[in-house]
Amino acid sequence: MGLKGRDVVSILDLTRGELEALFETADKFDRRGRARYRLLEDKVLALAFFEPSTRTRLSFETAMKRLGGETIGFAGAEATSVAKGESLTDTIRMLDSYADAIVLRHRYEGAAKLAAEVAENPVINGGDGRQHHPTQSMIDLYTIRRLFGTIDGLNIALAGDLRYARTAASLALALTLFRPRHLYLVSPPQLTMRPEVLRVLDEAGVRYSVHGSLDDVVEELDVIYVTRIQKERFPDPMEYEKVRGSYRITLDLLKKGRKGLKVLHPLPKVDEIELAVDHSEYAAYFQQAAWGVPVRMALLTHIFGVEV
Amino acid sequence: MGLKGRDVVSILDLTRGELEALFETADKFDRRGRARYRLLEDKVLALAFFEPSTRTRLSFETAMKRLGGETIGFAGAEATSVAKGESLTDTIRMLDSYADAIVLRHRYEGAAKLAAEVAENPVINGGDGRQHHPTQSMIDLYTIRRLFGTIDGLNIALAGDLRYARTAASLALALTLFRPRHLYLVSPPQLTMRPEVLRVLDEAGVRYSVHGSLDDVVEELDVIYVTRIQKERFPDPMEYEKVRGSYRITLDLLKKGRKGLKVLHPLPKVDEIELAVDHSEYAAYFQQAAWGVPVRMALLTHIFGVEV
Amino acid sequence: MGLKGRDVVSILDLTRGELEALFETADKFDRRGRARYRLLEDKVLALAFFEPSTRTRLSFETAMKRLGGETIGFAGAEATSVAKGESLTDTIRMLDSYADAIVLRHRYEGAAKLAAEVAENPVINGGDGRQHHPTQSMIDLYTIRRLFGTIDGLNIALAGDLRYARTAASLALALTLFRPRHLYLVSPPQLTMRPEVLRVLDEAGVRYSVHGSLDDVVEELDVIYVTRIQKERFPDPMEYEKVRGSYRITLDLLKKGRKGLKVLHPLPKVDEIELAVDHSEYAAYFQQAAWGVPVRMALLTHIFGVEV
Repeated sequence: MGLKGRDVVSILDLTRGELEALFETADKFDRRGRARYRLLEDKVLALAFFEPSTRTRLSFETAMKRLGGETIGFAGAEATSVAKGESLTDTIRMLDSYADAIVLRHRYEGAAKLAAEVAENPVINGGDGRQHHPTQSMIDLYTIRRLFGTIDGLNIALAGDLRYARTAASLALALTLFRPRHLYLVSPPQLTMRPEVLRVLDEAGVRYSVHGSLDDVVEELDVIYVTRIQKERFPDPMEYEKVRGSYRITLDLLKKGRKGLKVLHPLPKVDEIELAVDHSEYAAYFQQAAWGVPVRMALLTHIFGVEV
Repeated sequence: MGLKGRDVVSILDLTRGELEALFETADKFDRRGRARYRLLEDKVLALAFFEPSTRTRLSFETAMKRLGGETIGFAGAEATSVAKGESLTDTIRMLDSYADAIVLRHRYEGAAKLAAEVAENPVINGGDGRQHHPTQSMIDLYTIRRLFGTIDGLNIALAGDLRYARTAASLALALTLFRPRHLYLVSPPQLTMRPEVLRVLDEAGVRYSVHGSLDDVVEELDVIYVTRIQKERFPDPMEYEKVRGSYRITLDLLKKGRKGLKVLHPLPKVDEIELAVDHSEYAAYFQQAAWGVPVRMALLTHIFGVEV
Repeated sequence: MGLKGRDVVSILDLTRGELEALFETADKFDRRGRARYRLLEDKVLALAFFEPSTRTRLSFETAMKRLGGETIGFAGAEATSVAKGESLTDTIRMLDSYADAIVLRHRYEGAAKLAAEVAENPVINGGDGRQHHPTQSMIDLYTIRRLFGTIDGLNIALAGDLRYARTAASLALALTLFRPRHLYLVSPPQLTMRPEVLRVLDEAGVRYSVHGSLDDVVEELDVIYVTRIQKERFPDPMEYEKVRGSYRITLDLLKKGRKGLKVLHPLPKVDEIELAVDHSEYAAYFQQAAWGVPVRMALLTHIFGVEV
């Protein structure tokens, strides 16, 4: 149980072996179906969501409660002491003294790292800044592994907003722990992957290429990982409309791809995927969201050092 | 256990027999007093409240927790993925993959029906649009039955906003499953019961009459079911003030009625009932609210197919 | 178990003996470390927080859940029936019929007293108005007792906003149940302790003196209890800036004090304590916050009459 008592700030805090052990535990929970366990019945998990979130927050809450544990916390900082001007470190110290571990979502880069330094108990990054969302990446990797039996050897595209979407950056980092065949980074020029992420890919020897359109590469792909392009990123609304349209995932596009091609998305999605795709064999994102519960159950049992 | 695994979108989804079985289970829970059970300890209930609610949300939460189950969810859509533009169906799919059943409150007509189509697990309508609030109607019926020993043969007035208050419309529909002696629909002309509800009353052969004032009918009544008249319904504030005054339930009014006359209200109330009524023998609304817990406990056990 | 079934509106609702019994129970919980018990597993606690709060709300929630009980409730009144205009008494009646006890936080003086009159089940004041915050005072007293082995015989300063900070007034009242050597009331002239609180000190024979600066008295002190001075109290922002600076707790100030001097604060703090103090031997406020859980666990078991 190598993760016992540890913080999870970045997906790179884990080794491939630790991730694989996690996935095996998630397999067990998934096989057993919905149930409640008594594995963590003496534990309380704090959910400190300074930024809106539904999926991450509710799936952690579900995971903890299905394990017999309890949660406390807040969603949105309005009704909390943060609104009174309390520092992040003071809020974290408080939660650390109430709960046995903390899941943190925060808009600022480095918030989870700071929290991990302050707290004696484990801190799990539920997404901070523009780069880290390790538990989402665990789910993404788990989904690929479940669908293809492996992560190694696959052609994977990350498409959409690669600059500001923390899920895309975090998955790129996560893939350096595996051996994908090729990584296709597909985005409008304003939203290309940040140099610090590319540097990690380079160092890890991950082969990748940069593209402006999915049309150019769709025939090569096993997986398309889509992220939402947010209007706020574009000073000019016309520019946004143009970009949005050309990154829309349609059935027509997907039909040009290989047999077995799958579309993943961290969700929520707005209209970046044509509705018809939802009901096609390409759509893996609802299943991906559902696997959020067993993967987070696995993580919690490993962090708390409980045998499943 | 005819309700096992079923959705509850409208009160008309249930038969009289199913309602009566439900009330018998509620009787059992009520007789035993406050306790916690282990009946649903392997279940998680999602509370998806897109609209503000205290009573419905907290009584479902209390009911689920007293049954040993757990809840997840949100109250108000601000801090959720809905604020990011996610569709209702995507949100429901997510909750459906986390929880074992969903309670939905939504401002739009048909939201619960749509959710029930999307979700594999049972969806319970916690109030949507202008017409459906089946669990409130269950509590209303249960209250009448507890107070009078029967619902059949009673003279029941629905008073106040019959056009926009979903509780009034839903109770009117509910009463078609029973044989009230007469239904008095009492409202200002702007707020009369919608034709589609009247049509269901007609088809069911429920005798009803339409009135502009409680004064005209109070002597006939066993039950007055009051709903709040909302200021927003009136373009002219003067008009609202006039209407509000003439629909106020006062002790003087009630004293003109039969012995045993009872006032019900789904709550919250603002000033549509004179405060002196709260402490009189006429007031049944606090007791009605309290029965929300055993009735919702009964519903949850029937939906999950658990023997009580 | 003298507290069984009782309301806690003011710290003066308890005797010294009852507080000491409470502290002994808190000692037990604290000694055993973090755990979950089954002591209150048949109980539901309503947390009715009409005003923002993190520490009080989350530590009550943690306390209840570590005791095996459940919580329901709301934080902030926006998404509740209060926003629809419901009266406090109606909201309390509802919660009273759902839960086994209620913790109330409200901005209005007397809200908890009113709630206690309406509710059949115990009401615990989680802070109301400008004067009462009994559970915070229990934690403050417990902290002093743990740090010094006693409350009697100590020189204690209350510093900052003594007029509007309910924690300071409540602790002053609480100290009348003990025999502190001397109480130093240190505040800007606009924010002196209210006459009604001074009257209670006078009646109890507590020796106190009023000061404008900590510098004058720091050498005498065992405990400095600091409260936040809020900008909103000052019509003139310049005046606020001046006052704020002269009430800042710095390491330099504390070094002038006795050996063993401790700084307490109900938290959250903003910048009224120099950051360097956090890591010094003077800082007791993080420990004080942590003891919020065992003290509130003790209170809940005493209120519910459960043997620990």
